[in-house]
Amino acid sequence: MTGVSLIPLRGFPLVSQGDDLARLIADSLTVTGLELRDDDVVVVTGKVVSKAEGRLVNLPDVEPSERARRLASLTEKDPRVVELVLQESAEVVRARPGVLLVRHKLGFVSAVAGIDRSNVEGDDELILLLPRDPDSSARDLMESLYRHTGAHVAVVITDSHGRPFRVGNVGVAIGVACMTALVELEGRPDLFGRPLTGASKFPVADLVASAAVLVAGEGAEGTPVVVARGLHVSAEAGSAQPLLRPRETDFFAIPDRDYD
Amino acid sequence: MTGVSLIPLRGFPLVSQGDDLARLIADSLTVTGLELRDDDVVVVTGKVVSKAEGRLVNLPDVEPSERARRLASLTEKDPRVVELVLQESAEVVRARPGVLLVRHKLGFVSAVAGIDRSNVEGDDELILLLPRDPDSSARDLMESLYRHTGAHVAVVITDSHGRPFRVGNVGVAIGVACMTALVELEGRPDLFGRPLTGASKFPVADLVASAAVLVAGEGAEGTPVVVARGLHVSAEAGSAQPLLRPRETDFFAIPDRDYD
Repeated sequence: MTGVSLIPLRGFPLVSQGDDLARLIADSLTVTGLELRDDDVVVVTGKVVSKAEGRLVNLPDVEPSERARRLASLTEKDPRVVELVLQESAEVVRARPGVLLVRHKLGFVSAVAGIDRSNVEGDDELILLLPRDPDSSARDLMESLYRHTGAHVAVVITDSHGRPFRVGNVGVAIGVACMTALVELEGRPDLFGRPLTGASKFPVADLVASAAVLVAGEGAEGTPVVVARGLHVSAEAGSAQPLLRPRETDFFAIPDRDYD
Repeated sequence: MTGVSLIPLRGFPLVSQGDDLARLIADSLTVTGLELRDDDVVVVTGKVVSKAEGRLVNLPDVEPSERARRLASLTEKDPRVVELVLQESAEVVRARPGVLLVRHKLGFVSAVAGIDRSNVEGDDELILLLPRDPDSSARDLMESLYRHTGAHVAVVITDSHGRPFRVGNVGVAIGVACMTALVELEGRPDLFGRPLTGASKFPVADLVASAAVLVAGEGAEGTPVVVARGLHVSAEAGSAQPLLRPRETDFFAIPDRDYD
C-alpha cells in the first residue's frame, strides 16, 4: 500500500524579515514529530518567504501615478495598491470593477500581482509583495534545509490563484527547486499500447501546491509549510517557468484593450 | 503527526458497460491491502464511470450537421466529434484552430465537452461522453460502496481540464456526493484575529481531484481510483455545482463571437 502523504507542519511561528526559514522549518518538524527524508517535497507559501525576505511596503509611502489613479477608479481599488501592482507587472490583462488581472514581471497571470494585505502583522497599511526571484528562493531554502536536516528535499513555493470558469482559489507553484515542475507524458503508452497524445502534460508542482492547500488550513489555524512524501519527482534542478503558458499561445491572457 | 494520505488502488480491471464499479473498487481495495473507512474520499475518473454507464458512441454512426462542419473546419477537428461536442454543449465559448472550448450542458467550461478518444478499448472509432448526471452517479456509487464495504465514504468523480494562463491539465470535480465541494472561509479569523476577506473560498473537491492526479499515474501504469484519507469534508449531501462560476460573473466564459 504505497501512496503519498501530505503532512502539515504545526507550531509554525510568525515570520519576520531576516528570519532563517530553514531553521524555523527544522524547529516545526520537531514539534510535528517528523524527520525530513531525501525526496520529500517541502511546500511553502510565498507569503512567509516574502516576509523573511523583507518584501514589505508601507502603503502611506506609496505615491500613485496618474495611470494607477485611472486604473484604481476603474477597478474600485486603492490607488496606492494599484501603483504597487503596476510596478510589479509587465502588463494589465483585464480591468473591471473589483478585478485587476495582470501579467507579473515573473511571467504568471494573476489578480493584483499576488499582492497581499492579510496576515501582515495586524497592520492594514503594510503590503506584502511576492518574493523577488522565487526559483532562487526555493533553491536557497533547499540548500539551507540540507544544512539543517541532512535531507535532499525538493522545494515548492506557492501562491493562491483564482481561475476563470470555476469558483475558489487553487495553489500554484511560483518557485521550484530540485523537482520536475511539468511532466510530459506524450508518447508513453496508453492502456492499449497506443501512444498518449494531446493533453498529456501534468503540472506536478501546481498539483502539489493545490494538494498542500487541502491540508494547510487557513487563517489562525493554518500553517505555511506542508511536507509531501512519496512522490517521485526529484530532479537535479527545477524551475516554475515551464508551468507558464507562453503569452502568444494563450488567447485568454492577451489584454482586451489598451490599459496604458 | 496527522495529515492526509492519497492511496492509488492497484489492479483495477478494464471497465465495460454494466459493470458494478463498487464491486470492482472493493476487489481492488483487497489487492491494494486497504479497507475503506468512514469519511474516506473515493476519487474516481469520469472515464470509468462513463464506461460503466455505457456512454460510448460509435463515430461512424454520427452524421455531422452543417454547423458542426463549419466549426470542424475552423477548429481543424473531426466533424463527427464536433457534432457530438455540440450535442453535449449549451454554447461554444471559443473556437480557434486546435481549440474548441464549450460550456457543457452540465454547466462547466472545458475543451470538447470532455469527450475522450483515448483508452476506449483500443478502438479509435469509439468516443466516450461524460456521465449523464455525475452528481447522481457519485451518489449511487457512494451508496453501493456502503453496501459492499460498510463504510460511509464521500465520492468525487473527476475530469481533467486544461486552463488559461498555465500549462498542463489539472483535476476537477464533475460529480460529488457526501462532501462539501466548496468551503467558504470568509469571516473566519486570520492570524491577527481580523476576519478573512476576499479570496477565501477553497474548491475542496477540485483540490482533491488534482491531488488524485498526482498519485494515479497515467496510461498503462495508471489507476482510475484513488482514496484520500484524513480530510474533514464529509457532509450529508454534496454536488459539484457550487464549483461552477456563474456565467454572468465570468467574463472569460462569455463567447467572443457568434458561433451559431
